[in-house]
Amino acid sequence: MAEEKGVKLLDLWSSPFGQRCRIALAEKEVEYEYKEENLSDKSELLLKSNPIYKKIPVLIHDGKPVCESLNIVQYIDEVWPSKTPILPSDPYARAQARFWADYVDKKVYECGTRLWKLKGEALQEAKEEFILILKTLEAELGDKKYFGGETFGLVDIALVPFTSWFYSYETYAGFSIEQECSKLVSWAKRCKERASVAKTLYEPKKIHEFVGHLRKKYGVE
Amino acid sequence: MAEEKGVKLLDLWSSPFGQRCRIALAEKEVEYEYKEENLSDKSELLLKSNPIYKKIPVLIHDGKPVCESLNIVQYIDEVWPSKTPILPSDPYARAQARFWADYVDKKVYECGTRLWKLKGEALQEAKEEFILILKTLEAELGDKKYFGGETFGLVDIALVPFTSWFYSYETYAGFSIEQECSKLVSWAKRCKERASVAKTLYEPKKIHEFVGHLRKKYGVE
Repeated sequence: MAEEKGVKLLDLWSSPFGQRCRIALAEKEVEYEYKEENLSDKSELLLKSNPIYKKIPVLIHDGKPVCESLNIVQYIDEVWPSKTPILPSDPYARAQARFWADYVDKKVYECGTRLWKLKGEALQEAKEEFILILKTLEAELGDKKYFGGETFGLVDIALVPFTSWFYSYETYAGFSIEQECSKLVSWAKRCKERASVAKTLYEPKKIHEFVGHLRKKYGVE
Repeated sequence: MAEEKGVKLLDLWSSPFGQRCRIALAEKEVEYEYKEENLSDKSELLLKSNPIYKKIPVLIHDGKPVCESLNIVQYIDEVWPSKTPILPSDPYARAQARFWADYVDKKVYECGTRLWKLKGEALQEAKEEFILILKTLEAELGDKKYFGGETFGLVDIALVPFTSWFYSYETYAGFSIEQECSKLVSWAKRCKERASVAKTLYEPKKIHEFVGHLRKKYGVE
């Protein structure tokens, strides 16, 4: 790996995992070069930078790659600590933030994908599970402004990219997230008032169009 | 949750995830109360302390629960920073440690379980995959003493409990880890020279007996 200076992000516009990194970099006001990857024809740089998973996002800092989105967000927080902290300083609050960010990682994407990929009974099961996941997250949020309290942090960054997918989830699975989890929807609106989030997320309709392509690709139609 | 002072670990003797926490606590010389759980009849304390996953290990510190083993190990490192550091201080080295500990988490247990649960072609596939996982880890270890270099750390703690299971994996899947990955076996021996590891891990034969019970439970015999 060349010892090139600066920050580079290998990413895909629609990726909720890549968007986490873009939000974190924006929060820290870090300038970086954005490199859109074509996942059907991955760049040599991506294959070389993430030989284990061969997946985006990859953050390359001074020629050294960091992989896996939550790992990247924590790295960004540690390298540029002076701006808005992403993780709190108290060890217990940090452990809680890591626990819930990991919960989002384990649950939301996988179950969300089933909402647009499956049909019939399997779709109904996925829908019930997804509502339970969101209600669990909503209970953790409670009446707080952000997941960590007054400060926008790791769990918010982990979850908010998926809120652009809510419209697609609702459309294909036939339910209303607003009706099930109104507090979570209000939280998403609050997050989108932040410049870092507003400039990173795409319109739900644009994501819906993208999900339509994915459905065709996987023969769901 | 009562504001009881002190440190308590809800655990199961044979759990590689629980053993990670015990090794970390031993490295930091933290005194704690060990509470063995019966997973067929979980305690009220476990269900209350880990309502999301209802799984061991749970570390309860001054009445507050921390769940998920790698999260617990990082919490231990942050609360008791004065003794041997588990994570390095350099952000890039920390990101590498988190990446590889997460790799162990995602791969070793799941694939290892298939080695004693499956038969025929599925077992052969699992065996090939498991050898590839170990070779990937061995390549990352390289000629270093521990995964992080000279210092015993997060990746060592994440992986070493599984080395007591190697004998069972080998026996049921029919292969030799020593033959495939001799450097990894030497690393495991080095780790077991540490008091924290030696006093936590069980004899491979005892784990093998335990795996035998699991096979009966799941109707593998």
